[in-house]
Amino acid sequence: MVLKVYGHRISEPSRAVLIFCKINRIDFEEIQVEVLKGQHFSPEYRAILSPMRQIPAIVDGHLKLFESHAILIHLSSSFPGVASHWYPVDPSKRAKIHSILDWHHSYLRRGAAGLVSNSILLPLNGIPSNPNIVIQAEEILLRSLSKLENVWLKDERFLGGNTQPSIADLSLACEVMQLELLSDEDYHRILSPYKKVKKWIEDVRSATKPYFDEIHEYLFESQKGIREKMATQSGKKKVRAKI
Amino acid sequence: MVLKVYGHRISEPSRAVLIFCKINRIDFEEIQVEVLKGQHFSPEYRAILSPMRQIPAIVDGHLKLFESHAILIHLSSSFPGVASHWYPVDPSKRAKIHSILDWHHSYLRRGAAGLVSNSILLPLNGIPSNPNIVIQAEEILLRSLSKLENVWLKDERFLGGNTQPSIADLSLACEVMQLELLSDEDYHRILSPYKKVKKWIEDVRSATKPYFDEIHEYLFESQKGIREKMATQSGKKKVRAKI
Repeated sequence: MVLKVYGHRISEPSRAVLIFCKINRIDFEEIQVEVLKGQHFSPEYRAILSPMRQIPAIVDGHLKLFESHAILIHLSSSFPGVASHWYPVDPSKRAKIHSILDWHHSYLRRGAAGLVSNSILLPLNGIPSNPNIVIQAEEILLRSLSKLENVWLKDERFLGGNTQPSIADLSLACEVMQLELLSDEDYHRILSPYKKVKKWIEDVRSATKPYFDEIHEYLFESQKGIREKMATQSGKKKVRAKI
Repeated sequence: MVLKVYGHRISEPSRAVLIFCKINRIDFEEIQVEVLKGQHFSPEYRAILSPMRQIPAIVDGHLKLFESHAILIHLSSSFPGVASHWYPVDPSKRAKIHSILDWHHSYLRRGAAGLVSNSILLPLNGIPSNPNIVIQAEEILLRSLSKLENVWLKDERFLGGNTQPSIADLSLACEVMQLELLSDEDYHRILSPYKKVKKWIEDVRSATKPYFDEIHEYLFESQKGIREKMATQSGKKKVRAKI
């Protein structure tokens, strides 16, 4: 039975898993879960995707699994064609990759997903954003980008002193990519100081060519739609202010 | 060179690593980092503990490592005396443990540490708590306890359908234990509905006897001190209100 990957390309961790499968030539079926329409809350997906209702999730034979890092580790360990640099066997290298993956949850992911969700996605869906939560998310994001630049990318092209990408690079790069949904001004204000981070994104993109661009196409289409909507909302606000 | 464990027994992940080393008879030196006095921000600890300034951290030969889950995985994989149930070799079992460990970061840890820190520790240090953040943390905690009860502990005594404890049990149990710092009333209000969670804590305690109690002694001493301080502060507020 072919590996099934349940996800949506608007989700950062879904993108990481999809790119990983493609670059490693893992035979899989992609099943799009309409998270934007709440399909992951339906009873049928609850049974498939675990009661946590998270994406991405995989079904690999008898194993149903969610949490993208657990999925990436499982795929690296169970599919023999995966190049060893994605999840090195060397104990110290592997330990560092676990450390980066764990760090990611409470720092980069919390900051980036928190900022994009609270400043862009919720307001676009009519839910007013809480300025304190937006400020807090941006602070966490900036601290995380600084650590990415000065600690994880201190020595080499890839995270943790590696010359080739690991699953940590893929996960964290897809996370940073969601900042493309911010306004052009915010994007450059936030990312410009981090030259190594910007170069690293290009290196991950290049190492996973052409799949990084292919899987991120949906994000850039969303970017256009979001920026148009934001411009319309901003226009309406200005008109209201004049009235 | 003996394994060095840098941490503090007030920290949940430090306690998990210390109990793990003791129950598995790993020879180690415990080095207390005075986090309550900000010692982890000092330049000397920055060099040892990585620029992330996190505890726990270990030094194992040439390897410096932080993030408790990465540490627990490394110790399970590198020290031959560790019983296999802590980090099973079976791919499906191991994948489930990674899934629980990853889930923990954004749910149980965020809820429990967020609530205790914002409702107890910050106010005791003169920093007023933000009611919105406290409410949000409690909501995340309650949702996480419900998932713990109904998903992770659905089938067996230990998390993810295991009959013996894994590193996930140790990490998550130490996390829940910090709720002992709440007032007696809040503790029972929050935990009472979760019978399986309460029994599971007892099972983890029993499986790691006598080290679970030994390492948690500091927490219970802190509990006494905190409750006395809270009572004094509450008394002062009542006096002020009368004046």
